[in-house]
Amino acid sequence: MALLERNDTGPIAHLHLNDPTRLNALSDEMLAALQSQFDALKQDVTIRAVVISGEGKAFCAGHDLKQMQQGRQAEDGGRAYFKDLFDRCTRVMMSIREMPQPVIAMPHGIATAAGCQLVASCDMAVAAEGTRFGVNGVNIGLFCSTPMVALSRNVPRKQAFEMLTTGEFIDTDRALAIGLINRVASPDSLEAETMQLAETVASKLSAAVTIGKRAFYDQVEMTLDEAYAHTGAVMVENMLWRDTNEGIAAFIEKRPPDWQS
Amino acid sequence: MALLERNDTGPIAHLHLNDPTRLNALSDEMLAALQSQFDALKQDVTIRAVVISGEGKAFCAGHDLKQMQQGRQAEDGGRAYFKDLFDRCTRVMMSIREMPQPVIAMPHGIATAAGCQLVASCDMAVAAEGTRFGVNGVNIGLFCSTPMVALSRNVPRKQAFEMLTTGEFIDTDRALAIGLINRVASPDSLEAETMQLAETVASKLSAAVTIGKRAFYDQVEMTLDEAYAHTGAVMVENMLWRDTNEGIAAFIEKRPPDWQS
Amino acid sequence: MALLERNDTGPIAHLHLNDPTRLNALSDEMLAALQSQFDALKQDVTIRAVVISGEGKAFCAGHDLKQMQQGRQAEDGGRAYFKDLFDRCTRVMMSIREMPQPVIAMPHGIATAAGCQLVASCDMAVAAEGTRFGVNGVNIGLFCSTPMVALSRNVPRKQAFEMLTTGEFIDTDRALAIGLINRVASPDSLEAETMQLAETVASKLSAAVTIGKRAFYDQVEMTLDEAYAHTGAVMVENMLWRDTNEGIAAFIEKRPPDWQS
Repeated sequence: MALLERNDTGPIAHLHLNDPTRLNALSDEMLAALQSQFDALKQDVTIRAVVISGEGKAFCAGHDLKQMQQGRQAEDGGRAYFKDLFDRCTRVMMSIREMPQPVIAMPHGIATAAGCQLVASCDMAVAAEGTRFGVNGVNIGLFCSTPMVALSRNVPRKQAFEMLTTGEFIDTDRALAIGLINRVASPDSLEAETMQLAETVASKLSAAVTIGKRAFYDQVEMTLDEAYAHTGAVMVENMLWRDTNEGIAAFIEKRPPDWQS
Repeated sequence: MALLERNDTGPIAHLHLNDPTRLNALSDEMLAALQSQFDALKQDVTIRAVVISGEGKAFCAGHDLKQMQQGRQAEDGGRAYFKDLFDRCTRVMMSIREMPQPVIAMPHGIATAAGCQLVASCDMAVAAEGTRFGVNGVNIGLFCSTPMVALSRNVPRKQAFEMLTTGEFIDTDRALAIGLINRVASPDSLEAETMQLAETVASKLSAAVTIGKRAFYDQVEMTLDEAYAHTGAVMVENMLWRDTNEGIAAFIEKRPPDWQS
Repeated sequence: MALLERNDTGPIAHLHLNDPTRLNALSDEMLAALQSQFDALKQDVTIRAVVISGEGKAFCAGHDLKQMQQGRQAEDGGRAYFKDLFDRCTRVMMSIREMPQPVIAMPHGIATAAGCQLVASCDMAVAAEGTRFGVNGVNIGLFCSTPMVALSRNVPRKQAFEMLTTGEFIDTDRALAIGLINRVASPDSLEAETMQLAETVASKLSAAVTIGKRAFYDQVEMTLDEAYAHTGAVMVENMLWRDTNEGIAAFIEKRPPDWQS
């Protein structure tokens, strides 16, 4: 079995973290496997949505601490390795944003530290009832500084600060209330509900979702003026596509669109 | 009947979208009517609050798709018209922020695409039970890129992303929970509750609300340092007004203020 | 009794606003006392968490209006005094962010205007059931322009705008829902629950909490790229500490860490 399984269902790529004995830790190998898949998916126009799940008791427990400790044996005490490790982890997280397809996290069990960051970095998340979320590196003396970048762009400040400094877990009710996840499903229906969300997104005009996702993250960091200037230009291009013309015409004529892409 | 009715009740201007057969679409004509009223209200110191509602089954269904399709007949396939259209729509939305008065949306039925953007662009919103909100241009191949500018400045990221890429509606409970609206009222009491909110705001010292509204949107895009420097200067000016002196004195003396404006 | 009492319990400093006849107003004297304590705490590595509470009926009712009115007797009508006052108040609020320790507000009764700003400026807040929060300077003609800087960085826009322009109070349920506070406790258990939260935070590796708090507020104002570059560098330094090495080793070996700091 591969460390990271991929199973496609039509236009939906399902990535499954498959290192249950290490709680699907983001080891060097797992980060490389994720980056490789993300790089492939970035170029793959046949895939319209991506789902990420995990095997075993936990969705993802963050970095591989044993492997990190081994990095200390280098002459520089690990400095170069740690810098490279966090750079690679950041590239993985940033790739989710850069991928043309919506990416949906499907956490269960535990999502902690960089595992919680993975949930926060995805465009959407559907969690199993009972999932616990934490950014609890502080408990072992390693503050979750990079995970908080993604977390604090999902949830309000005081709630992010509490998670980061208490190291305590929150449950799915709380995660839903503060914006970390979109939906909660029973463990039995988790995959079905997540796939339904993925299929909904995958059924849209792919080019529109792609430019929309990119514009979403671009505009959110702009001032209001800049954001409107940018998205206004995006909408003009969108209007001029053949398939958008067809989509609007079909809507007016109350028939299904005949899209070519 | 005018396309956009205006009825003033004392210091409250009530704008009523009145194109029910087109679900109060933001047609060229409706955008022009809104801009004209907003431009007038910007100069009107007798008006202290503005309410926006809609006639018929829907508050506002967004752009006028039939009119947009007609724009394609131009030599450039509509490019110049679409650019101009989105520019005009953006000016309308930005005008809400620039108006000195608080603007309260009073949606009912459906508020979708640019109609949902109109709700998000207002300073506050009171919705009728049963109202459904969506940014579902994606369903017809036209991603709601400009509406998302306003939406994503009201609600958390994952919730905005879900609405934009699934094209699904949310109900008033969800809209309230994620911050898109302030209050929900039964259809029977919607106008009364909205007017009560407008009257509350209109009863304040108008100049204070005006500088406060402007400073609110200015500071929210600044760093913390800049925001405090800016608002500190605003508060000094505010303190030096005759009516603020009177307001504070009256509060200390437990009597109503004798305001001149 | 001092205007601002300080009682330390081990590594937790408890600051108690003690001017109940003035509802713990942020008078010149109170601001000076807070700044003095904050300056001392910034240098005090033995203190790992700070709690702020108030004596009497209200946590804090904002600025001392009578004192402000006396400022008008200066030749310039108070301009220089007001500028200095808001500058000093801003320094107090900014100091909370700059302090190495997490600062927890423990409001009860009423937290209004700059008193609500004090709650919003703290890193976390535990409120007594029945606490009412407001930024209601607008009621006396003085818009809460500086308080809104802190408030609007805690809660969604429409909710902040409503509080600022209606001058109405919100209760603890609403404050919790919109992100202004972290937890609600019965008045009887307020201090115990707040101290428990402080003790939880104080039990962590102090240096990790300190760099984490600083990085939290730094990164939240950056673009995503900048934020990851900054926090990645912070995590590398964190990893190279002796106590973090020990913390991770202890976790792997399932034993308590032997931390030296």
